[in-house]
Formats: sequence, C-alpha cells, structure tokens
Amino acid sequence: MKHGNVIVGQSGGPTAVINSSLAGVFKTARDRGANKVFGMQNGIAGFLEGRYVDLSEHIQTDLHIELLKRTPSAYLGSCRYKLPEIEENEEIYIKIFKMLNDLEIEHFFYIGGNDSMDTIKKLSHYGEKINSSIRFMGVPKTIDNDLAETDHTPGYGSAAKFIATVMKEIIKDANVYGNQNIHIVEIMGRNAGWLTASAALSKGEDCIGPDLIYLPEKVFDVDSFLSSIENLRKNKKSIVVAVSEGIKLKDGRYVCELISSQSQFKDSFGHVALGGTAQFLSNTITQEFGCKSRAIDLNILQRCGSHMVSRVDITEAFVAGGHAVEASFRGETGKMIIFNRVTNNPYQCTTQPFDINKIANIEKKVPLEWITDNGTYVSPEFLSYARPLIQAELSPIMVDGLPSHLYN
Amino acid sequence: MKHGNVIVGQSGGPTAVINSSLAGVFKTARDRGANKVFGMQNGIAGFLEGRYVDLSEHIQTDLHIELLKRTPSAYLGSCRYKLPEIEENEEIYIKIFKMLNDLEIEHFFYIGGNDSMDTIKKLSHYGEKINSSIRFMGVPKTIDNDLAETDHTPGYGSAAKFIATVMKEIIKDANVYGNQNIHIVEIMGRNAGWLTASAALSKGEDCIGPDLIYLPEKVFDVDSFLSSIENLRKNKKSIVVAVSEGIKLKDGRYVCELISSQSQFKDSFGHVALGGTAQFLSNTITQEFGCKSRAIDLNILQRCGSHMVSRVDITEAFVAGGHAVEASFRGETGKMIIFNRVTNNPYQCTTQPFDINKIANIEKKVPLEWITDNGTYVSPEFLSYARPLIQAELSPIMVDGLPSHLYN
Repeated sequence: MKHGNVIVGQSGGPTAVINSSLAGVFKTARDRGANKVFGMQNGIAGFLEGRYVDLSEHIQTDLHIELLKRTPSAYLGSCRYKLPEIEENEEIYIKIFKMLNDLEIEHFFYIGGNDSMDTIKKLSHYGEKINSSIRFMGVPKTIDNDLAETDHTPGYGSAAKFIATVMKEIIKDANVYGNQNIHIVEIMGRNAGWLTASAALSKGEDCIGPDLIYLPEKVFDVDSFLSSIENLRKNKKSIVVAVSEGIKLKDGRYVCELISSQSQFKDSFGHVALGGTAQFLSNTITQEFGCKSRAIDLNILQRCGSHMVSRVDITEAFVAGGHAVEASFRGETGKMIIFNRVTNNPYQCTTQPFDINKIANIEKKVPLEWITDNGTYVSPEFLSYARPLIQAELSPIMVDGLPSHLYN
Repeated sequence: MKHGNVIVGQSGGPTAVINSSLAGVFKTARDRGANKVFGMQNGIAGFLEGRYVDLSEHIQTDLHIELLKRTPSAYLGSCRYKLPEIEENEEIYIKIFKMLNDLEIEHFFYIGGNDSMDTIKKLSHYGEKINSSIRFMGVPKTIDNDLAETDHTPGYGSAAKFIATVMKEIIKDANVYGNQNIHIVEIMGRNAGWLTASAALSKGEDCIGPDLIYLPEKVFDVDSFLSSIENLRKNKKSIVVAVSEGIKLKDGRYVCELISSQSQFKDSFGHVALGGTAQFLSNTITQEFGCKSRAIDLNILQRCGSHMVSRVDITEAFVAGGHAVEASFRGETGKMIIFNRVTNNPYQCTTQPFDINKIANIEKKVPLEWITDNGTYVSPEFLSYARPLIQAELSPIMVDGLPSHLYN
C-alpha cells in the first residue's frame, strides 16, 4: 500500500537508543510504502528554520540501519524548544503547517520525552482545530524513565545497564587498597530517581552493591546522611553511595546549590543545570570524618554509552518507532506509543498508542513504596521491575578497535 | 617437571587487566608444576601483616580463570607501600625473607608499575646479599604506560580503548543541540600523557576527534589555551578538549591547584591527589566567553572499565604473567618482563625478561616529537604506536544483564 510523505524529528536529551527509534520509524515507513521520509534537523526548532533532510539519502543500506541503531546521541540533532500556546502565538502554527503542507507531509513523528510530547499535543490540537489531515504521533524516549502511562521508556534500560555495570566496577575498584574510603557516585535524574535506583541492580552474588542510595523523591538531610555514613564506617572500610543529582533539602534547595559554582546555566525550559552534589557530599565527609572520599560524576557517559546497551531496550526503541508509523498509517493521531507489561518473569511487553493529553508535561516518579522507609535504598519490587529492562546486549560494530557509528 | 612454592602479589593502581596477569601467573605456574601458588593480600604490605591465601582454593576451575581475566580492580587487593632502603631498615627484609622461607617460597612475582618494580629491585638486591635462592620477577602493569624499557605496558591498551570509545560518544553527544558549548574531558596521567593522547584515537571516518589535546609533557599556559578556544569558536559550535589531570603551569604548579579544593590528599608515596583541572578550565571558559561549558572527569572508570577491554591488551597481560613464571622457573631473577615491538603493521610483539635496575623508579614520558609544536595535539607517529594496542575485544561473561566477575 502507498502512503504519502513522512517527517520525523528528535528532541530533548539524547539516549543511547534514540537512534534505534529513528531507525524504526524510517525502516517501517519505507517498508510500508511511504513516499518520502524526511528528517527534521535539531527537531522542530531546526525545522522552523527550514532545516530538514531526505533520510533515504543518508540511510542507504541495511548496514546503515544497523549502524544507526548503535549510534549514540541524536542522529538528526536535537533541540530544547517548547512551542507557545496556540492562543499566544498562532503565527508559528500557521508557519509550521504551511511548511508541512508544502512538503506534502501526511505523518509527523516526534521522538522525545515530556517536553517533546507537549509538541505533539499542541500540533495535534492545532491540526484538529484547522481540520488538517496530518497525523501526529509521539515516540517515547528518555533515560529518566519519567513518562506517564507507559510501563517504562526506551533509553532507560540501556542507561540503567551502563550505571549498574560501572557501579560493579567502581565497587570493586573502591575495595582495592583495603583502606577507609568513601565514594559518592552522582547519577542523573532531576526529579525522578529511576536512574539512581538502577545502581541497586549491581548487587548480586559477585557484588555487594552500593551501601546507600538517595533518590530525589525523598527529602535529603545532610545530618542523617552523615550519621548513616558514621554507622557504616564501624564495620566497613570501603563505602559506596549512589546519589541523584536532583536530591533536595527540606527547604527546597538542591543539595548541589550548597556548593558555590561558577557555571550555573539554565536551559531554554528554565531548568537549572545541576552538578556538584557528589562533590559537596564528598567534601563534607572529608571535613567531618577526615577520611578519604572521592566524588564520581557519571556525567553524560550514562546517556551516551552506546557501547553497552540493553538488547531489550534497543529492540523496544526500534519497535516503538515502528509501531508509531503503523498506528499513524492506519489513522491514529495525537497519541504516543506506550508499553504495557504483560508478565514480569518471563518478561513480556506489548505496545499501544495512547492519548497524548494524558502524557505530555506529566512526570512519573519512583513510587514511594519502592523506597525504603529510611530513604536510603530501594525495595525488591523496584529490582523486579528494572531487571528485565537491562537484559542482553547488542554488540557494537567494531572497526579498528572502536565502535563504529553512522555519520552524515 | 616439579617446582616449589610460588607467591604473587598485586600493587599500585588497578587496571582492567591486572587480573589477567594474575591468571597468567597462576595458570602457568600450576601447569608447569609449581607446588603451591600463594597470593599476597594487599601486596607486600598485607603480606607483612601475614595476610596471604592459597590461590588454588579460590581459582578452582577454568571458568574461574576466564572470570578472573575479566574482573576489574586487583583480585588480591593492592597497596601503595614502598620498602625502605636496605641500609635504613634491614629488619623488614629479615622479616620478609623469614616469612618467605617459612612458606618455602622459591618464586616471587609482583604485578605493578614503577613503584612496585622498586619492591622487586630491593628484594632481589637483598636476596643477592644474603645468597637467597628465591627468585624475584616483575610483571608490568599500569594504565599510565610510563614504565621504562618496555614498548608499552599491560593495562594501557584497555584504558586507551575505553577513553577513545567514550570520547567518540562524548563528541557525538556534544553536537546534539547544535549550540555553542565546550566540553573539557579530564583524563588520568600525572606526569606522562599516554592516556590523554589516546583520546586522539577517536578520530576517524565517523568522528572528528577532540579539537585540542593537552599533555603534562608540555607546560600549560591558560592564556594560550583561551586563545586556542577563541580561534576554534569562530568556525565551530561544539568544541571538545582532552586534558591530562597532570598539566602544569610554567611555575611548576598543577593547573588543578588553581581551583580551591577541600579534599586534597597525599598517598603514601607523597603524591598529591589530583582532580579539578577540567572543572577549573571549564569555569574559566564560562567566565571568559560566557558560553556553556561542561567538565567531564573520566575518573576511575578509565582504569576499571573492564566491560570494554582490548583483546590485545588482556592477552598480553596474561602472557606477561605467564612468561614471568617461565623465566623464573628457568632461573631468572631481578627482572621484569618487557615487550619488544617486532612490527607495527601487522602488529607483533615479543617478550623478554629485563634488568629491573634499569626500570624501577624511572618514568617514560610521551616523546616530545610526538606532540605538535603548539602543544595542542599528537602526531601520526603516536597514533601508529597506540592503534594496535586497542584492537579487538574480549567479551564479558554476561549474567542477568551485567558483566560477571570472580569473587572471593
């Protein structure tokens, strides 16, 4: 069956598997008879500047598709751009729809997180308002795993696998001298602790796991933290703590605000750039106990570590892209693909298009009942939930000793 | 043929493949007829406290040997302990040799770097002095690649492969928004820039590589650095800089000393704990140019990242351990196994026992002719040297989604 033109964009922070979703959109659209598949460069922001490409000129072979899946960051580039409300600035919508109509676009796909789903919501609302036949579908993506309604989000499983892997390595390394030392590992997650919680996956028969885990879902208290450390020091030389960059004090300030920083930036959504939480805690430990402490910030490695992805995750990312195309081609619009968990052990998930209005701008946090009462660890329920998402690998395509990526 | 008892220890900073050398010593000694193979816990320091194990009780199967090879950090634990000069404190030597004789040790192996080879040197000198028949052999190990006389050092290739891999990922990630931003990546290496130089290996057909590389072999000048950045900014949005933690100013101070740090520690060799170089440069860029800049410290991940090792490296680490045993069993003592490069392309290396007196306490730095005149990049000669060392992979043994390690 023949279909018209398709356009796809990527938005928000990159993940190790966001390009697998792009591959899923491209391959499915092409295989199912789309005429042309365009890619917005730097999302809707770049598209508004007239920047887009014909993807078939860049993804020419099946090997390209395999390389694309394994390429970190957003192949098309990304943006952090929020559309104004329709009543505030209708001109921008008129412009976008004129551009889409000029390109004879029938299907519009946007791969992203909370803020990106807001774009799908607004464009589908405006399309409805003007009786446009263009369909708008969201493809979930975020390492933060904080999208509503879906069991989980592509990108999370691979980030969790990377975090758990390096936690195992850090814990082994931290024990090497047998001396008293305290490692504080800072993990991404502004308001939701899914990523930090994944540090607990490192615990197993060959690893003791982190000693303490602090998520942003619970108020952080520096004194309680220090007394937890003091207790652990009585029986343990090497202590490893996983801490979210987004932990906050009772008064609402981020812990990282306690460290003076010369380089605090706000992004275009007004989010303060976080960082320094682990360093602050590490400094505080040294002052309090006079023992060695090291801060480790996993930084952007946890979102771009495509050399160690979860096969479950990268496959689901591809499927989410493909199913968005399939749904749009049969007439759906204003929806995002969600995952429904059928069974946990053995793990099985299905996908379903779901009303974007119930997803956009909503953050899903770690349930409080999955955090221990003293706020320093996660429960077995979390582990049962997360473990299936990090299973199996997709080997990088190695060339001359390094993982190979698709390039423009 | 039957041999007597063997003891092996690990010392200094861990690497991703130091346990492959331990596996090489253990398996070769066992296969060649050693009676017992003991392991010192936490190196010579732990041995002096009477802490050692019978390794055959811990490494019981061939699967254990495979897991040991892939286990990061030092399986036996490590130490940073320097023996006193013999004339300063002969008692300690008398004690060590009594302990070795009590255990009926005939062969003593020590896996480590510069400081560790000093231990082999002193013990072999004392053994000679008292006409002991115990043989002392060094097995090279350091991510820093700074051991004299050997072409390269086991541990370096895997750290270089990890660094080049994540540099590729960071450079892709840094380009994602198409905005002006400057990433400063801090890499280990106090006096020798081998590790930082390996960031250049990321450059290839699918990656532009870092824009600037600063090694400790050249004096660092903040103003020159800022003008290099200013020049790059004219034509490039995203700039990525690789910088050694050990870069120094003209007056001899480390750059990281310019940032006030609450947690400066000295280890038992009197080395100051470095860190903060990238953060200082990043802060300076933000102050000077008002643009976004991010510091990324690869931290201990670069030395414990055993999920991404070089097959060449992990194999050579095993061979170095095995050949140390073989040399000791045929009567060599007071030597370290070195690598001699036969050909570069195709790569081939041989090993040889080499006089420890010409190795201990000497640091091998990156030749100045392998650094560009302006001190901001490395030459093709460096790439030809380093490229063979990162080739091929040894897959982790994955269990339940994570790399499996040998545990006690």
